[in-house]
Amino acid sequence: MTPKPGHLMAAEIAEQPKVWRRLLTEGADPIAAAAARIREYAPRFVLFVARGTSDHAALYAKYLVEIVHGLPAGLMSPSTMTVYGSTPDLRDTLVIAVSQSGGSPDLVRTVEVARQQGALTVAVTNNPASALADAAQIHVDVLAGEERAVAATKSYTAELLALHMLLNGDTDFEISALPELGDEMLRHSDAVDFIAARYRFAQRLITTGRGYAYPTAREAALKLMETSYLSAQAFSGADLLHGPLATIDPQVPVIAVVPEGPGGQAMAPVLARLAELRADVVTVGAKAAGLAGAIALPSGVPDELSPLLEILPLQQLALQLAVTRGGDPDEPRGLRKVTQTL
Amino acid sequence: MTPKPGHLMAAEIAEQPKVWRRLLTEGADPIAAAAARIREYAPRFVLFVARGTSDHAALYAKYLVEIVHGLPAGLMSPSTMTVYGSTPDLRDTLVIAVSQSGGSPDLVRTVEVARQQGALTVAVTNNPASALADAAQIHVDVLAGEERAVAATKSYTAELLALHMLLNGDTDFEISALPELGDEMLRHSDAVDFIAARYRFAQRLITTGRGYAYPTAREAALKLMETSYLSAQAFSGADLLHGPLATIDPQVPVIAVVPEGPGGQAMAPVLARLAELRADVVTVGAKAAGLAGAIALPSGVPDELSPLLEILPLQQLALQLAVTRGGDPDEPRGLRKVTQTL
Repeated sequence: MTPKPGHLMAAEIAEQPKVWRRLLTEGADPIAAAAARIREYAPRFVLFVARGTSDHAALYAKYLVEIVHGLPAGLMSPSTMTVYGSTPDLRDTLVIAVSQSGGSPDLVRTVEVARQQGALTVAVTNNPASALADAAQIHVDVLAGEERAVAATKSYTAELLALHMLLNGDTDFEISALPELGDEMLRHSDAVDFIAARYRFAQRLITTGRGYAYPTAREAALKLMETSYLSAQAFSGADLLHGPLATIDPQVPVIAVVPEGPGGQAMAPVLARLAELRADVVTVGAKAAGLAGAIALPSGVPDELSPLLEILPLQQLALQLAVTRGGDPDEPRGLRKVTQTL
Repeated sequence: MTPKPGHLMAAEIAEQPKVWRRLLTEGADPIAAAAARIREYAPRFVLFVARGTSDHAALYAKYLVEIVHGLPAGLMSPSTMTVYGSTPDLRDTLVIAVSQSGGSPDLVRTVEVARQQGALTVAVTNNPASALADAAQIHVDVLAGEERAVAATKSYTAELLALHMLLNGDTDFEISALPELGDEMLRHSDAVDFIAARYRFAQRLITTGRGYAYPTAREAALKLMETSYLSAQAFSGADLLHGPLATIDPQVPVIAVVPEGPGGQAMAPVLARLAELRADVVTVGAKAAGLAGAIALPSGVPDELSPLLEILPLQQLALQLAVTRGGDPDEPRGLRKVTQTL
């Protein structure tokens, strides 16, 4: 019997709350120990290095560092070291590499150079036996289990949660409630079914969000590109108003991620402008604000944890849309699971 | 008589080499003085803040800082301060805001907070009378003259050159030769005419580059979106192989920026993969490597100065394509020259 198209991706999407439970229990002590080593090092700057889906987890963590720790942070361009051979002064700098496979040669090289240059290096991966885990002083295992679908799903939310545990251990929110909220969202996917049907013939799509929700917009766009071959573009709500707005007309669907907190509230002027343009807007948020549809988020989840939940229906959407369009998201054309770039 | 569509943008594209000459003469002393103040402050970390086109100039400057100065650098997300109210520790940090108008309230607020938090702040703008110029300790005027077209062109290359003068004063290249090289490129636009005709009916487009050429890819995509309403997406050559490659088929034109130096050389595996996919590739580079067309760059220009030249034919392409498609790039639908975001 031929397996159903997308069965791997479907199983891995469904598995996510279970992965979070594992990380919150088995992962708690090792991640707390890693966090203690970071505190001891007392970094003044934090740099992230990652590619693809993991780059969106890194972007999320950059917001955590800037907002929760009040430290300047940046995303490294590996090419500065691997192509141009720069050897930056990285004393007092924490360098966090994020990678599902831990196998990308350019990330390994970047961590090696960073370590030589005085940084404290942390690898956040789904593979403790990887070259990246070896290269860094500290390894954080995201414990997602083997990921077989080419489109990363469970490793993404596992990276988000592991980075949150590493960088924001003192949250007020009862974090153990998250897996149950995730299970509930995954069960109620009627809105996703409807939206997937509506997007059947869309050629391009815009995603948008601000603050912690911006990485969600980026990751949703990548998932849609990888699986459904849509031309999906993500913009921060603020950047959208600077130029890309011109590409939006009622033929271009917009997905806006608007959690309850400040990041979602800051989207109000963007939603107003999109409404003026009569754009087809679907919201992912606590309030049903989308003109064309809405995917509900549970109430009471702070902005910095909301990304774990926001992405779930958007992963489901990418999967369903790919299958509806006759594709197989488990084997997207032209892609390999581990990408070798130097 | 009704003015020709795009006449403002055409005039400002043509004016660029003249703007560079002005900046290299009138701008030399004030920028050298600003560079001296930065050296005296001796920053350990450099952050940039910008939006839209200026964000691409900032990204270019981030590469300069990382490669030439060997300092860690990052791009700030204004929302961390304006939406989430963070007050990061910015001692020993140089914060450079880049903005044509100097009028974006979120950039002004970010610079104010950065200054309070101990940073040395620099505003790089085209308007010495702007709120941003006032807010920063140091102002660098890019001397581009009033920019009237909504799609920024001359202010972009003026920002690139001003940032280069500020951050890489000791270049070996005879920088005064650049304006003449620019004039020559602008005169020889046959390849651009041909490519604009070929893209007449394209719905979406991919741009790509690595290292210093990546900001060019980003800016070219934005110009095409703003003026021609194409769905244009930019990816670093390395990121392109992680996912977005799935969206590429022979119907999606690709523009690859491949200067002579290391950044262009590092694109070889990307071009090879695109050739396997039978993608329609146009190159902007010193060698004619594109399967579907090539725009020549002069030989002998180092990677860190090449972006000033690389963008010229791509600005011309955005203008021509917009006009060919019946639009007016001087008044793109839905856009305003100064975007107010908080």
